[in-house]
Amino acid sequence: MSTQQRAILVIGIGAGDPDHLTLQAVKAIRRADVFFIVGKGPHKASLTDLRHRMIEEHAEGSYRVVEVEDPSRDRGAMGRSDYTAAVQDWRERRGEIFERAMREEMTAGETGAFLVWGDPSLYDSTLGILGDIEDRGALLVGVEVIPGITSVASLTARHRIPLNQVGRPVHITPARRLAEVGQNDDGDIVVMLDAHESFTQVAGNDVWIYWGAYLGTPDELLVAGPLHEVSDRIRQVRAEARERHGWIMDTYLLRITDGRGSPRRAETDGSGGHAAP
Amino acid sequence: MSTQQRAILVIGIGAGDPDHLTLQAVKAIRRADVFFIVGKGPHKASLTDLRHRMIEEHAEGSYRVVEVEDPSRDRGAMGRSDYTAAVQDWRERRGEIFERAMREEMTAGETGAFLVWGDPSLYDSTLGILGDIEDRGALLVGVEVIPGITSVASLTARHRIPLNQVGRPVHITPARRLAEVGQNDDGDIVVMLDAHESFTQVAGNDVWIYWGAYLGTPDELLVAGPLHEVSDRIRQVRAEARERHGWIMDTYLLRITDGRGSPRRAETDGSGGHAAP
Ligand SMILES: C[S@@+](CC[C@H](N)C(=O)[O-])C[C@H]1O[C@@H](n2cnc3c(N)ncnc32)[C@H](O)[C@@H]1O
Ligand SMILES: C[S@@+](CC[C@H](N)C(=O)[O-])C[C@H]1O[C@@H](n2cnc3c(N)ncnc32)[C@H](O)[C@@H]1O
Repeated sequence: MSTQQRAILVIGIGAGDPDHLTLQAVKAIRRADVFFIVGKGPHKASLTDLRHRMIEEHAEGSYRVVEVEDPSRDRGAMGRSDYTAAVQDWRERRGEIFERAMREEMTAGETGAFLVWGDPSLYDSTLGILGDIEDRGALLVGVEVIPGITSVASLTARHRIPLNQVGRPVHITPARRLAEVGQNDDGDIVVMLDAHESFTQVAGNDVWIYWGAYLGTPDELLVAGPLHEVSDRIRQVRAEARERHGWIMDTYLLRITDGRGSPRRAETDGSGGHAAP
Repeated sequence: MSTQQRAILVIGIGAGDPDHLTLQAVKAIRRADVFFIVGKGPHKASLTDLRHRMIEEHAEGSYRVVEVEDPSRDRGAMGRSDYTAAVQDWRERRGEIFERAMREEMTAGETGAFLVWGDPSLYDSTLGILGDIEDRGALLVGVEVIPGITSVASLTARHRIPLNQVGRPVHITPARRLAEVGQNDDGDIVVMLDAHESFTQVAGNDVWIYWGAYLGTPDELLVAGPLHEVSDRIRQVRAEARERHGWIMDTYLLRITDGRGSPRRAETDGSGGHAAP
């Protein structure tokens, strides 16, 4: 590594439970000189608090914590190319802010760290932004990635279910692409980033849903059952929780059972009710 | 929990690196009285060795390790329904063996643990088998699942790439379903359980491959580049490694780039060569 280079650790911290941290992530936190914490939306406090707590618990020696402001994102754009353009624009502005922070807040030879929610590869912009900076070559950065527990693995663990049916594919999709992904397929579908309760648009008596919100946190909520039976219940639980917290973070698995009935009897106890832990 | 009940921990151990263990998994290992280790195929030794090492390093107090034999699987069946039937049959026999082991090797009130490769939800039969046993009601078991780092997250971390393109879906598929999953879609595809180098069947100049074998272990191999350029190289690296080790464990991401060129320039340095760590 050139002495001009900034070493950057992109550390997956898991999806809400402080004990989702891997031993590898703990070791990486110990190596960092500077932590960059990116502020984000209304749930900002809860999400950045966890990162601060992890740093306090695991960082060693002297270290600095730098709060990085997040550019606001144009949420109005809904068409696919509009959406991609809006995301690109936001990524570029975020990239400028990251680059400035790395240049000003750490010296060459030091190690910086970004603590990324879940796994850094899954619907997160940090790796793409750092890749753009590497490509531009304006700042020499060497990036190392530490994988993390995803909200997907967290969801299936709490429902105690396999993600896939035997020999079948699994699809993970942003809610906005659910209609397309759900066509003509016998695989299971995980839906993320759903701001509009897209499960209410899914038809069919053979679909089971495993829903989870605030997974891994003390506020965790779980509901599972045949979609047509529990859909209203999820909407209600979701609305109440959103009201209570001011924000919500949820994900769900849709399992198509080919009319063979319950994919996993033990999960539902016939009630389809939700269980707080 | 009834005192007649066996508490069973299904612990994801990550995909090869001992430091993939989460803090939650370490705590779970400390709680277990009995560890069930399932023997498996030619790579048996390497895969079970890692489990033994993790137990020796993290288990506390007195504990027992029970080796469970694995029923052989009919590998001849290749049609889809044949395949499912063969897997079902194998699962049932495995279930009988698991149930006998839990009944004979642990007493009610004790805690047993299965250490599962990667994440327990992803192409692994343990949860399904324990679910069948719960459903039959022959043995009272209470199952708790600890999520783990998947080989998918391990693959993307080592290549330092996002799993998805902005706003697009991701598909995870067993190799035998690749042809169907690969049709008419702009998402990225992760292929697992590939015994036949199925990537050689994929056409198109717009496809990039990120391949990894023995991820997270000292034997790790990585190759990335445009599929038509690096396909032969992967076959060669793969054949040599398989010869050397007697078995191989590999997975890869296929990224369709819509002809916009390199999805991530920094990854390949124009060589498309593989890097041992
Ligand atoms: C921007 S993506 C980041 C995903 C993250 N990198 C991961 O590996 O899980 C955010 C989405 O992940 C899901 N999510 C993340 N954490 C969650 C949690 N604790 N409970 C429920 N859903 C969660 C939600 O669908 C949310 O909209
Ligand atoms: C039976 S599946 C189990 C997957 C595991 N539960 C997980 O979460 O990764 C086994 C397949 O996972 C992939 N795999 C698991 N560990 C791997 C590793 N260390 N390197 C490359 N591929 C791996 C291979 O495709 C292999 O055929």
